[in-house]
Amino acid sequence: MSEADVAFRSLVDKFRFERVLNSNPQTKTISLLGFIDEKSAILTAEKTHFTFDENKVGSQSGSDGINTPFFYHCENEYSCTNAMQELRQLTSNDIYYWGLTVLKQNMDHNPTARLNLIWPATSVHIRKFEQQQLHLVRETPETYEKIVKPYIDEMYNLGRLKWVYNILYQGAEADRVVYRDFLEDNKRDGFVILPDMKWDGVNLDALYLVAIFYRDDLKSIRDLRPGDRDWLKSLNTKIRTIVPGCYNYAIRADELRIFVHYQPSYYHFHIHIVNIRHPGLNDGIAAGKAILLDDVIENLKYLGPNGYMNKTLTYVIGDNHDLWGRGLKDVVAKQLEEDGIPKTPKIVNEFTEDEDQE
Amino acid sequence: MSEADVAFRSLVDKFRFERVLNSNPQTKTISLLGFIDEKSAILTAEKTHFTFDENKVGSQSGSDGINTPFFYHCENEYSCTNAMQELRQLTSNDIYYWGLTVLKQNMDHNPTARLNLIWPATSVHIRKFEQQQLHLVRETPETYEKIVKPYIDEMYNLGRLKWVYNILYQGAEADRVVYRDFLEDNKRDGFVILPDMKWDGVNLDALYLVAIFYRDDLKSIRDLRPGDRDWLKSLNTKIRTIVPGCYNYAIRADELRIFVHYQPSYYHFHIHIVNIRHPGLNDGIAAGKAILLDDVIENLKYLGPNGYMNKTLTYVIGDNHDLWGRGLKDVVAKQLEEDGIPKTPKIVNEFTEDEDQE
Repeated sequence: MSEADVAFRSLVDKFRFERVLNSNPQTKTISLLGFIDEKSAILTAEKTHFTFDENKVGSQSGSDGINTPFFYHCENEYSCTNAMQELRQLTSNDIYYWGLTVLKQNMDHNPTARLNLIWPATSVHIRKFEQQQLHLVRETPETYEKIVKPYIDEMYNLGRLKWVYNILYQGAEADRVVYRDFLEDNKRDGFVILPDMKWDGVNLDALYLVAIFYRDDLKSIRDLRPGDRDWLKSLNTKIRTIVPGCYNYAIRADELRIFVHYQPSYYHFHIHIVNIRHPGLNDGIAAGKAILLDDVIENLKYLGPNGYMNKTLTYVIGDNHDLWGRGLKDVVAKQLEEDGIPKTPKIVNEFTEDEDQE
Repeated sequence: MSEADVAFRSLVDKFRFERVLNSNPQTKTISLLGFIDEKSAILTAEKTHFTFDENKVGSQSGSDGINTPFFYHCENEYSCTNAMQELRQLTSNDIYYWGLTVLKQNMDHNPTARLNLIWPATSVHIRKFEQQQLHLVRETPETYEKIVKPYIDEMYNLGRLKWVYNILYQGAEADRVVYRDFLEDNKRDGFVILPDMKWDGVNLDALYLVAIFYRDDLKSIRDLRPGDRDWLKSLNTKIRTIVPGCYNYAIRADELRIFVHYQPSYYHFHIHIVNIRHPGLNDGIAAGKAILLDDVIENLKYLGPNGYMNKTLTYVIGDNHDLWGRGLKDVVAKQLEEDGIPKTPKIVNEFTEDEDQE
């Protein structure tokens, strides 16, 4: 075990369980709240996907001296039926059989789960992980100015972007960086591509990268103007050129879903790059949060000189989000009233009362 | 092992892997095609969720003789941090730590995966499980005119919408209709709301309804003009008024994700209404297929007199879709070239050749 492993082990060993923050049986993910040395910690675990394909550097080197990779399916001892150590049949019916299995595991080749630990965790972190009610809100330019912009400025002043600057300038996570394009005298066009923490870095079907830009005048799409169209178009081309190359063309330019989030989880402009086959990450690629880069580029043609500052943006927000308590809750109530949607009636029966108390 | 277990083990042991039919990294599910005794077999495996809570019948019986269950979280040796046999740190940055773990497994208390075997499997089974290649395409107004519109007209002439008219006028699926608003002298505002076939009709978390309109001059959002904004706004209000009422206000107006699809699966204008908590239905709510009704209403403000006929629409299309073969394939190739994305190199090795042959 490396020193980092020992330190990590000792942190996790000190974790004292408090309660389950969230559990998602669809994605096989669980988030636990606990304490380490009297400070709050959030431990999230997500089961790994099945091991079934691998790129191996070939044994026969080409005449150019470059080892060519070979692609294998279900060959090694940890993949597919090879890994099945135990089997049990649950039931069967005609041509259908159901059962359970215990698979061979191994830290290097087939670990059980990925872990994420946040420590010390703030109340903002805890709220972000906790299961919450979701709402659809229309953010007008006025709502942005009055509620969202002050929040973004506050986050910025609190130094919530330190980890971003660590990656851009301090070499943090340098071993994970897939691509870096940075010239001191052309900061505007610089960016870094690295794997999103939600990706295991192995299974291409789940490819999830994030491009973070050196440009720091953009907090979110709200700051995009028609003058940024060419910059965005060029990025769109660069991403679709670079990423397939980084993964040996096992994924192609037209197989990438490239999008931004609004609201994003941090207010330094970044772009998500996901295998088009990836079926979704909670709300991550859903309409109401994800906006295709191509659509952003297209919309900037119509929105006028103020660009996205001019648009009403509709999105899903959880009531744990700071912005909900800071005013979006009232905005939604007012919008429903203005739209002429009747208020939820105060029906006097247990069912409805229970619902109201939640 | 029981007799059934032995028989099941012997079936699985005879499974000869042919190819991966489908792989879903979100749900950690994989479907393999293979052969057992020369007949096709489909073996699907899905990782189990984390073990973390248990209901135990209490040791102290109540005075009514009923054992009261106790609810435990993270107590037993297979749950939460107790189960972590091995730990490895991947990286850390500030207060964030990422790692891997190997968890204790056990067939009775914590199996790795659930299995489903279909044998002998027919070609219909195989197609149902098989994944198609997906592509991102930008549909310009010209592409719509040249490729998509003729296809829509053809579908219409082939009578592919008969089932829609059956619902609207012939009373088909009448017992499933949740709401019908139709006046003979105001057909334009009429619509029917009924459960989508993907919904079980029970679990409100997965609520999925569809609104189909009597208006038949709209094949898709392409036909929407600024003059339709008020009609759409009024629909948006009606849907958010009616649906909560139909479900006893257990779901509220701001908890509905209301959207259209492009490409839709049939070309008679309809709107999808889904619980905002629904975690996704394949591509159904993803950016690149789903467009929020609120965004449609907003965009019609900017798009000029031709409305959506004027816009370049970017979406995901599978190569099983008729439109792919009817021209979108060439459109994508041409767009990549125009964007300056280099062609996938013809690397001469088994890996790349295999990919090309797929």
